Formats: sequence, C-alpha cells, structure tokens
Amino acid sequence: MGVKIEKAAPSGFCSGVGRALEIVTRVARERGGVEMLGAVVHNARVMAELEALGCRVVTSPADIRGGAVVTSAHGVSPELEDELKRRGIEVISTTCPFVRRAQTAARELARKGFLVVVYGEAAHPEVKGILGWAGGPGIATLDTGFLASLQPLPRRIGVVSQTTQVPAQFQRFIKKLVSAAFTQNSDFRLLDTICHDIRERQAQAARLATRVDLMLIVGGRESANTRHLARLVARITPTHRVASAGEISQSWLAGKQRIGVVGGASTPESALEEVLSRLKELTSDHGQSG
Amino acid sequence: MGVKIEKAAPSGFCSGVGRALEIVTRVARERGGVEMLGAVVHNARVMAELEALGCRVVTSPADIRGGAVVTSAHGVSPELEDELKRRGIEVISTTCPFVRRAQTAARELARKGFLVVVYGEAAHPEVKGILGWAGGPGIATLDTGFLASLQPLPRRIGVVSQTTQVPAQFQRFIKKLVSAAFTQNSDFRLLDTICHDIRERQAQAARLATRVDLMLIVGGRESANTRHLARLVARITPTHRVASAGEISQSWLAGKQRIGVVGGASTPESALEEVLSRLKELTSDHGQSG
Repeated sequence: MGVKIEKAAPSGFCSGVGRALEIVTRVARERGGVEMLGAVVHNARVMAELEALGCRVVTSPADIRGGAVVTSAHGVSPELEDELKRRGIEVISTTCPFVRRAQTAARELARKGFLVVVYGEAAHPEVKGILGWAGGPGIATLDTGFLASLQPLPRRIGVVSQTTQVPAQFQRFIKKLVSAAFTQNSDFRLLDTICHDIRERQAQAARLATRVDLMLIVGGRESANTRHLARLVARITPTHRVASAGEISQSWLAGKQRIGVVGGASTPESALEEVLSRLKELTSDHGQSG
Repeated sequence: MGVKIEKAAPSGFCSGVGRALEIVTRVARERGGVEMLGAVVHNARVMAELEALGCRVVTSPADIRGGAVVTSAHGVSPELEDELKRRGIEVISTTCPFVRRAQTAARELARKGFLVVVYGEAAHPEVKGILGWAGGPGIATLDTGFLASLQPLPRRIGVVSQTTQVPAQFQRFIKKLVSAAFTQNSDFRLLDTICHDIRERQAQAARLATRVDLMLIVGGRESANTRHLARLVARITPTHRVASAGEISQSWLAGKQRIGVVGGASTPESALEEVLSRLKELTSDHGQSG
C-alpha cells in the first residue's frame, strides 16, 4: 500500500497577494522596474521573480532613489505615506483589502477615544501599519499581560486582530480581556478583522490534519499566516514547516501513511507542486513498512 | 456573649431613588396630589407614604384622568412618553440618571445597526424602557440561549446591562456571548451600565456576608436590586429576604452569633432601623447557646 499524499484546498495565492503581485508586476513591466519598500509579500521565491522583472527592495524610506515606490500588501502607516508624498515620491499601494479594513477600524476606534489593541505580532509590518492608522497610543500583543501596567484600566478598549491570526486563539484572547479588564463603566468594542481566506485555509488545514499522520506547511520564513497555520495544525498532528521542497527530510517520513500538504497565502502553487513531487519521490524510493 | 448585629454601608435610598422621591413629593405638595404611572420605586412603604400625600398609582396609560403624570425612576420608552404627550398629558419624568445612561447607549447602538441585548429581567419596567429606547428588535435576557434561534448570527451585537445586575454575573454572560457568537466579521460592543451605587452596595454586602453567619436583605418584593443582593450574598452565607421587620422568623436566628443587615436602593432607612430593633429584641429575649 502506497503513501497517500493530500493537498489542502484552497491553495495558491490568496486574493490579496494575487492583487498585490498583479499591481507590482504591471508597474514593473510598464516602467522597466520599480522600487519596493520591504517585501511586497513574505515569500523569497516570489520576491526573486519580481527582482528578475527589475523590482528592487529597499528596506528603509531613506534608501528610495526613484520617484515612485510600491508599498507592501501588509500596508503602511499614514505617516509613512505622508512622508513619502512630501518628498515627492509617488506611492503605489498594494495594501490588501482585509488589512485596509483593520486599519480603518483602528482609526475609527482611536478617533472615538478607544485604546486600540491589535491582537498580533508587534514586529510584523501589518501590525505596525494598523497601529500607525490608530495614530495614537496603541498596543500590539498576543496576551493580556499588558493590562497589569494600565492603572487605572481604560474605560474604552477597542480590539482588532492582525488579519492572519487564528480565530479560536483570538476568541480566547478577548475572553481573557473581558475577564481581566471589563469593569465599572467599561465600553469595549471587539472586532473580528481576520481575513476570510486565511480563516478558510486554517479551517481546511485543521480538517486535513485530523486525517493524516504528518503535515507539511509550505511558506516563507517571514510569513505570519504560514507560521499560524503551522502552529494550528501542530496541535492536531506532527507538523513541519518548509520554505521549499529541498528542506524536506527523509527522516520525517518514516512510517507515515498519510501526508497532508498546505500552502500559505503567499506561497505560489509552483512551490506546492514541487513539494508534492518531492514527497512522491521520497516515499516511492524507499517503500513503506507497516 | 451577645449576638453581634451589623448593618452594611451604604444604606438608605440611592441617589436615583432619592431624586425620584424628591420630584414626586414636590409635585404632589404643589398640586395637592398627582397620578403616578406604576410604582415610582419598588417599595410598598414608600408608595404608601406617597399615597398619603395624594399620589395615586395608575397601572396603565389608559387609566390616567388628569393632565399630568409622574413616570417611574425605572424610566419609560420614548413611545410611551410620546403617546402621553400626544394626549396632552404633561409627563413628569423621574428617570434615574444611570437608567438614562443605559437608555441612551441602547439608542446609539440600535442607530448604528447593532442588535441590542439587555442583560436583565425581561418583565422589569427598567428593561422594557431600555428596549423601548433601542426602538427596534432587541433582546432582554439573563442567558445566552437566545443565540440558538439566531441564524445567521448578527454581525453587530451591542450589550448593555440592567443597572441593578451583579457585575461578576454580567461579566460571565458577556464571556459566554463572546465564546458562542463572536465569529467571522463580528463587531461586538459591550457596555457596563451597572449603577455605581448598586455596585458599591453589592460589594459591601458581599464583604459583610463573609463575616456573618446570617444575612437579612431588607427591601420590596418587586425590587430587582434587592433580589440581586439576596442572590449574591446567599452564595456566601445563609440569607433571608424580608420586606419588613414583621417577617423575621425566630427560627432563622437559632445558634447565629453574627447577623448582617443590608437594605436595597429603594429601602428607606426607617425600615432598616425597625429590622435592627426587632433583631435585638429577638436575640436578647431568648439568649444564645454555643
């Protein structure tokens, strides 16, 4: 009996990544190249393809040489956009519509006097951008420990989520927040800003994980959504995360009968196909015991 | 060793009840009486005193004979107020400012498209009034069971509390609501509209309950805040609820060494003093064992 290998659907780029790549590719073709502020998406292979089209990554606004720059699908703060415009630089935004929704919500909350809390990774560019849209004091965090330093507790707390977080974990976070901080006169606003595509990928990956004895998550090292997928399915079955087919270790496969493969929102279909081919090679070369 | 009897502070009327009685007493004196739509406060003794001043309770708007009516500290719906005004009846409102806050919040939530959920007793006039201010479909409930009948779940849910509810129970309710209903795109607004005075009375009563072996809660049978006080302290120590000193049973006191007495927000200080006197009589007549 052969090893069964199954790929989760949906796969390939999410609509936000697809849209961002379409924009940057068109601009690069029209202009013979363009500068990009940071990685447009968190995938090294995709970024290499863009560089082949004449796109060049600059890591800081100060490094921009030309008259135009493409900003990332993760979005940027309005302050950064304003700074670029003041310098006469054309800003070509590829901000994902789901990220835009979180940014807009953060701005509205801040305007109404809510302390903005972003459930997310403080160092991630999307989260930094959302906090930038809040425009005031805001907090990016994955746990409620920050409340200990707030005395008195703010009456108004508004919570949004990084678009790629795991819904069940976000729900646990807001339950803990309510337990710890909802008190006299509190006015809490809790918004689910998790991306629809991410939610569906996570649900399908979790479903697949229950049917297999090994999961491979394919995606870039910097990709938050891939990291969250891996963390989610690792609770269900043994899981490895790889950026490419070359990283698959033979030793992971020993005794495995069913293997699930899942790609992140910024993982090209071609990377997934290579992983599937490599898995077939590795499992047919050596046969199976049991 | 004698029985120790202790009264919780604060006691006597809360500011909202005091204010309502001031208004209705002044109007009754100026006009030689006035009609009141329902009990201005939920206390039979207080209502009897008002009747002695020429105040007359009508239970339905249709029964109003005169050109003016005093509405209750629990508030009324704007529809009812409009109806009375259309009939040319002067409306003298005694709505408690904390109830007004909950009404205003409910109206704002409804205007912004939130399903308004009032954590409270559906039959209580305050809760009916708050739902009236929401002006649309709203729900009054003490548990999250209502969610089962909502398919799909509303994206926007706004929650306020009846002013007299127990904060910890309200918190449990909103945690359950988040667990059961916070999902894709959810936008929840959670407002604590519990009255400050009620919160303080509950905290002090709970503190007193930990030090005594019997608690007496003094208040009107229709009084929600007295009922909530009783339910709260009954979890800590044996508890009885009485409307007046005459209801105290000798049998409750057998073997008790420390007795705590607490009044509701609509319980006059005189009723409390009578309960304290009666307790002293009953405990000195019979002495103590143990």
